[in-house]
Amino acid sequence: MTDKNQETQLKIEGRNPVLEAFRSGRTVDRLYVLDGCQDGPVGTIVREAKKQGTLIRFVPKERLDGLSERGKHQGVIALAAAYAYASVEEMLQKAQEKGEPPFLFLLDGIVDPHNLGAIIRTANLAGAHGVIIPRNRAVGLTGTVAKTSAGALNYTPVARVTNLKETIQSLKKQGLWFVCADMSGTPMYSLDLRGPIGLVIGSEGEGVSRLVKENCDMVAAIPMKGEIDSLNASVAAGVLAYEIVRQRG
Amino acid sequence: MTDKNQETQLKIEGRNPVLEAFRSGRTVDRLYVLDGCQDGPVGTIVREAKKQGTLIRFVPKERLDGLSERGKHQGVIALAAAYAYASVEEMLQKAQEKGEPPFLFLLDGIVDPHNLGAIIRTANLAGAHGVIIPRNRAVGLTGTVAKTSAGALNYTPVARVTNLKETIQSLKKQGLWFVCADMSGTPMYSLDLRGPIGLVIGSEGEGVSRLVKENCDMVAAIPMKGEIDSLNASVAAGVLAYEIVRQRG
Repeated sequence: MTDKNQETQLKIEGRNPVLEAFRSGRTVDRLYVLDGCQDGPVGTIVREAKKQGTLIRFVPKERLDGLSERGKHQGVIALAAAYAYASVEEMLQKAQEKGEPPFLFLLDGIVDPHNLGAIIRTANLAGAHGVIIPRNRAVGLTGTVAKTSAGALNYTPVARVTNLKETIQSLKKQGLWFVCADMSGTPMYSLDLRGPIGLVIGSEGEGVSRLVKENCDMVAAIPMKGEIDSLNASVAAGVLAYEIVRQRG
Repeated sequence: MTDKNQETQLKIEGRNPVLEAFRSGRTVDRLYVLDGCQDGPVGTIVREAKKQGTLIRFVPKERLDGLSERGKHQGVIALAAAYAYASVEEMLQKAQEKGEPPFLFLLDGIVDPHNLGAIIRTANLAGAHGVIIPRNRAVGLTGTVAKTSAGALNYTPVARVTNLKETIQSLKKQGLWFVCADMSGTPMYSLDLRGPIGLVIGSEGEGVSRLVKENCDMVAAIPMKGEIDSLNASVAAGVLAYEIVRQRG
């Protein structure tokens, strides 16, 4: 399946992901169910599908196995409209509607879909209004990202931009401050991270790129007390996001 | 390769992991190098191997490909003594030598090797003295864990115990307090997390088990401002560990 296809239609496999997709109000075009499978969880999924007018097909195991991308369908596969990218403006509007100062994540080249999924999950729970990713040299919204986000992708908007530096400059004019994570920075506990803020997380291998870093207002260091170099990118995003949550609280 | 074998000998593949293994002082029994490969990084690895008296074998690509478990050898594979499990006593001793109150991670059934690796990485950087895992129903120290730990496994001891509840009870007698992560708890910012502490992280699917939770002194909740249920286990561990770091600081 090409990246192009993954953007127009998404396969959701497994009972919890499929049920979560229905419950979040996502448009599911078609549901494949293992023929003869009628246990409780599958029954619940079929009821949700009927309620929403989704086309249901009961198929033999071979067909499901053939459709499956991860080999973990547990008897159900849903075809849904792909996760649509949002715009940065929608995120700012979401913040305004909630009466909160904007809190955005900007990811400078995350390539591992598990990291992207975990970060979207963190953004949702930390109360961020959206996640901005670059169009190039970064992973987009694939099925693995959706799965790893544990449903967060249904609620937290993700925007894709051509040039992260320009997005930062434009958002600065709208009052946002930007903080990026880097070992060379000021300990995060000493920074004032309240107010409208963009949290910039660097890529797994390279960290935050020079141009992006130069455009940040603050560089925050997570205290490193051990022997190795750096935290996993999604863990670092979580630690910094929750320092922002603490200071906002 | 069975789990048994992975415990007695470990294959380390890829340039950075192999170099990190040498530099951390790990015993490497044998080094396989792609015949004819003499670029800078490989040269550095070969020099390290000679310095430490490691047996070096130059082999054709087919042989390396055959030895590789992850298909990412980049021209080098090292065979090392497996990551040895430490004892809980060694961790307490390590804390004492550093003149610090003990800070241990206890993982109640983490099954994903990427999560275990990321948590060991976090434990190292948060200044914890060790990570305790249960012998059963949990992932052990496999090659993927070592890789994901980004070298932390060379520095941060990991102990395996038969019964986590009994370990907690025994460590309590030695003055440790235990905090576990659970949504039902007190917001983590309101708890006093200083002093000798054990941080208990639940499994990916089930969270902290009832028996273990009942034996904890405190239940800490990470503020959840979004729509979904929970953070990724390694992100939750990072957020809580750094709240401990902040309070200790």
